[in-house]
Amino acid sequence: MGDLAGQSVEGDLSYLPDSEFRRILSARISKESRAAIFSDMCRLNALYMIARAGSGHIGSSFSSLDIISWLLLEEMKEGDIYFSSKGHDAPGYYAALVGLGRLNFDLIHKLRRIDGLPGHPDIGTPGVVTNTGSLGMGISKAKGMVLANRMLKKSGRVFVLLGDGELQEGQIWESLTSAANFGLHEIIAIIDHNKLQSDTFIKNVSDLGDLEAKFRAFGWQVDRCDGHAFGALGGTLAKASGDLKPRIIIADTIKGKGVSFMEHTSLDSDVAMYRFHSGAPDADSYQRAAEEIIARLKQRMHGVGLPPLGLETIQRQASPGPSPSAQRLIPAYSRALLEQGNKHPNLVVLDADLVLDTGLIPFRDKYPDRFFECGIAEQDMVSMAGGMALRGLLPVVHSFACFLSARPNEQIYNNATEKTRVIYVGSLAGVVPGGPGHSHQAVRDISAVGAIPRLVIMEPCCEAEVGMLLDWAINQNSSSCYLRLVSLPWVVPYNLPKTYRLELGKGVALTDGTNVAIIAYGPVMLSAAVNAAQALREKSNIYVKVINLPWLNQIDGNWLASELGEVDHCFSFDNHYCIGGQGERIANAISAFTDKKTILHRVAIEQIPACGTNSEIIWAHGFNASKLAEKIQSVIGGQ
Amino acid sequence: MGDLAGQSVEGDLSYLPDSEFRRILSARISKESRAAIFSDMCRLNALYMIARAGSGHIGSSFSSLDIISWLLLEEMKEGDIYFSSKGHDAPGYYAALVGLGRLNFDLIHKLRRIDGLPGHPDIGTPGVVTNTGSLGMGISKAKGMVLANRMLKKSGRVFVLLGDGELQEGQIWESLTSAANFGLHEIIAIIDHNKLQSDTFIKNVSDLGDLEAKFRAFGWQVDRCDGHAFGALGGTLAKASGDLKPRIIIADTIKGKGVSFMEHTSLDSDVAMYRFHSGAPDADSYQRAAEEIIARLKQRMHGVGLPPLGLETIQRQASPGPSPSAQRLIPAYSRALLEQGNKHPNLVVLDADLVLDTGLIPFRDKYPDRFFECGIAEQDMVSMAGGMALRGLLPVVHSFACFLSARPNEQIYNNATEKTRVIYVGSLAGVVPGGPGHSHQAVRDISAVGAIPRLVIMEPCCEAEVGMLLDWAINQNSSSCYLRLVSLPWVVPYNLPKTYRLELGKGVALTDGTNVAIIAYGPVMLSAAVNAAQALREKSNIYVKVINLPWLNQIDGNWLASELGEVDHCFSFDNHYCIGGQGERIANAISAFTDKKTILHRVAIEQIPACGTNSEIIWAHGFNASKLAEKIQSVIGGQ
Repeated sequence: MGDLAGQSVEGDLSYLPDSEFRRILSARISKESRAAIFSDMCRLNALYMIARAGSGHIGSSFSSLDIISWLLLEEMKEGDIYFSSKGHDAPGYYAALVGLGRLNFDLIHKLRRIDGLPGHPDIGTPGVVTNTGSLGMGISKAKGMVLANRMLKKSGRVFVLLGDGELQEGQIWESLTSAANFGLHEIIAIIDHNKLQSDTFIKNVSDLGDLEAKFRAFGWQVDRCDGHAFGALGGTLAKASGDLKPRIIIADTIKGKGVSFMEHTSLDSDVAMYRFHSGAPDADSYQRAAEEIIARLKQRMHGVGLPPLGLETIQRQASPGPSPSAQRLIPAYSRALLEQGNKHPNLVVLDADLVLDTGLIPFRDKYPDRFFECGIAEQDMVSMAGGMALRGLLPVVHSFACFLSARPNEQIYNNATEKTRVIYVGSLAGVVPGGPGHSHQAVRDISAVGAIPRLVIMEPCCEAEVGMLLDWAINQNSSSCYLRLVSLPWVVPYNLPKTYRLELGKGVALTDGTNVAIIAYGPVMLSAAVNAAQALREKSNIYVKVINLPWLNQIDGNWLASELGEVDHCFSFDNHYCIGGQGERIANAISAFTDKKTILHRVAIEQIPACGTNSEIIWAHGFNASKLAEKIQSVIGGQ
Repeated sequence: MGDLAGQSVEGDLSYLPDSEFRRILSARISKESRAAIFSDMCRLNALYMIARAGSGHIGSSFSSLDIISWLLLEEMKEGDIYFSSKGHDAPGYYAALVGLGRLNFDLIHKLRRIDGLPGHPDIGTPGVVTNTGSLGMGISKAKGMVLANRMLKKSGRVFVLLGDGELQEGQIWESLTSAANFGLHEIIAIIDHNKLQSDTFIKNVSDLGDLEAKFRAFGWQVDRCDGHAFGALGGTLAKASGDLKPRIIIADTIKGKGVSFMEHTSLDSDVAMYRFHSGAPDADSYQRAAEEIIARLKQRMHGVGLPPLGLETIQRQASPGPSPSAQRLIPAYSRALLEQGNKHPNLVVLDADLVLDTGLIPFRDKYPDRFFECGIAEQDMVSMAGGMALRGLLPVVHSFACFLSARPNEQIYNNATEKTRVIYVGSLAGVVPGGPGHSHQAVRDISAVGAIPRLVIMEPCCEAEVGMLLDWAINQNSSSCYLRLVSLPWVVPYNLPKTYRLELGKGVALTDGTNVAIIAYGPVMLSAAVNAAQALREKSNIYVKVINLPWLNQIDGNWLASELGEVDHCFSFDNHYCIGGQGERIANAISAFTDKKTILHRVAIEQIPACGTNSEIIWAHGFNASKLAEKIQSVIGGQ
């Protein structure tokens, strides 16, 4: 779960400074030599950025860097556009932009920082032309750009880098037809065909078969070359588009290219898990990788008769990792799922290429025949689950919450209209981790699926509640559920009362209070609530009743009225946009109260979340306990 | 816009009774003769059903009926499953189920009625195994069924009928890969390849190219045959699956097959609009079509030596069509769009195969170079629009609200994170027309896209407000908008005040009242509100302030507090599910009021809407003025 980390590498970290890039760019050497040196320089800097950030995608950055370097150095002309549809290769691309002087050099120290470079591309960064991070949209975007160019009488080609795993998304194939019919020959899509997706081989996930035949059948011109051989790349790019067709270049690459033990070809079996897709290398891996790149660069410089490159090195202290006492909801979910799987032979598990991050490996290993790896194909996965439910199985469907609630949105509704039972589990919920950026920060999912009839949305605040909620969904409830899970380990300052039992729409008070209440859910917001309450009690003698309400779209109005009692001010903390969050449902209940007056105050996400470290993001959104306590005190100040 | 109609055919309508089906099914004639006679009998009854309902899909019912008849009569064995993924062929399939005695015969009189047969298939109908009506999900569902069968040790094949236009949906291609990888040879998908989608030829919309090559490249076994030649169909179906592959049969068919002037091959040019996709035939077309089928049946019966078939005939009075004084928002939108298009040369229009229903023909005819027909490819369309906006165009994107808000849900969010401006226009909004059923009743769209940052959702209540809102979106607002349009012509009992000017988040009172208010939007709910207010005034001397609030996800809390003044009871009428509707935003504002007490009462859709005539649906959901007036009176009764 590298996207969660934020645990950066300790020790000496090295990077190549701006001046060395200037020297290489102006050196009188062959194009191929320059590209090879530039590309490795970018590898070293990308490795530095990821090690320093504690998170980032090494494998794709390295597999794509030769392609990106050649495009930027030799192929692109004025008016041409480049972007990556998969977006995982961002650190490599940033390193190249920095190397070319198109981005402020200092940004290499600020990967995944709030004022730095986001985990996935965002147009706020110069040189980034479109936002990516959710897969499959690239060719469609490119088509729009080309059609706009034509209308506005602008010239220029659009180069789109695609991941091979990304080709599992239906939108890719949906987008091919009109590109061919419209004759959009300005589009040159390049597949970074590194044969792996996330943590393992594509052929183990959802084999893509004969890619060349597929693209040809859709009317595209197809070429293929070694994506690490500059001569072959250049020659293939130079080919003309036949009959004004859009073009696909399948560039065969190696995931982790450039560091022997990070190259996927070094895996000792084709079912092994690849360790360098995301996250940061450990200190030892970092050192070995850096040394290997530096040694090769030394050789390359020598080979072209240039003096060696001068490195800058800084000493880093590792940031602390998660506390051992942190609540880890994903492992708790793994255990709970296995337990339910033991009891229910008709329970089947579906995954969309996130088997590790969504905690499914224990289930898959124990029940391989009841585990279905669907690939990056969320619409297909959800409708398959619908078909399974119609025939009597109990499907449990997994992805990150940002994708699961949005990509197959209509498919979830269609299943719901059949009144079968499907359990959806969306992890990586909420605004943290802040490193991956807004494409991955699921703060819109409650709204996106909230109105679906008979779909009960719920979120646990600690490990114990994970098991309780899954048990409720499977053994007590008859309709479909959406279980929202925070993936980040989180230290929580509360325990659930021993007498706590789940009742739909009803919560439980964790602290006592009189005229002020906070309603929250999940470890991040509930911890903030309990800590804020403690601060108010200690500093201002204000007693706040903190209520854990794990039901996000179903609230029992009578329970709420009774629970709020004489409360004058109720605060709702939402790890979600204000619109459509749990607070909206609380408002709905409070606005119908007939005999009392509670004023509701909303704390929620008001704009597109920023990318940054977890604590940066918590502070940026005002979700830290001290700021929340201040806010509460300012509201009730007069009392 | 046949889905809106409900204007049924006047005069004599004929159908074949149950007894005649029994006679044919037990007659000693060849399989091919029986299928030909049965299929034409179903055509006559489907025609009757559609004429009586005033709405339904003739073209697809007729093109698919030979395939359906052969499957049901000859091919399917116990354990086999059949369903249509496209769902447009429902009347034909119902006629076949009725003919076989698997559905109560009386249901042929109840197409699109609340206790009858829904416009698109729903598992509430015996013989329907999955809900369809939104396209592209069929193969995924079939995969789920087959995998479940295997796990539960059930045998049987799954036959899925696909539309050819439907193949434009990305999910189709997304679903092919794992079907091949899993070796799901139990799946036999049949394409009703009638070459048309909705109202015109596929090649004019988004040409599918070499279908056979496409499916082969995805690892499926491909066969092709004449979908109206029973021998060829039977022979092709009888072929074995090679290497345990799933199978595609491309069945070449004729849209409207069986009635000469309804057959697409009778169109005099390949750019002509096809008139019999949906809606009802006029009285003359009905008579001519029925006569032609009856004459052919007579011949067929004679040919096999059987006495002629006995018809039942009933006299029908046409139901009244929409009043000439009805507000027609779609034509008003057509005019407003053209006007804005004249002013803004960078305004471009995108459509997903609903050019007629979404009112785009005037724009397309005047600005063909600024009109982009994207086919049934909503995800691709929305991301294309995103690319266009990034390059400086102002894209206006169209589909039915049910599809536009859900299928490209993540793509709309991705565009929003780029902070460009895209205008989304979702028509067929709300619970009526009630004929197409829940797949088309857009009552979840406000929730599905409501939380998207800077996306302003709005809905006009009359023709005049359509132009005002589009003008505001284009000329006064800087962020993206989602314009929600009721497509059904509707007589409204109000006029907007002459002084009315749009201000974001603020509405306008249409009637005066003191301590009771209704807030509503759009012609359907606002008419109900004004009529209910009038009834309360006349019968009970209760004065209700009715407020038109066209902003569905942005409400100005200060304005609302001031507008509600001394109001004790505020009613929110939502043409949407309760969760996530406008009422939720009103609740949010009211729950934050500090110095007064207004009790909010919600009127909204509480469960999956039923299919039926418009008035049946309005009554079923309690949206008629009298019921609403009663409800208001009961709440404030004590006063």
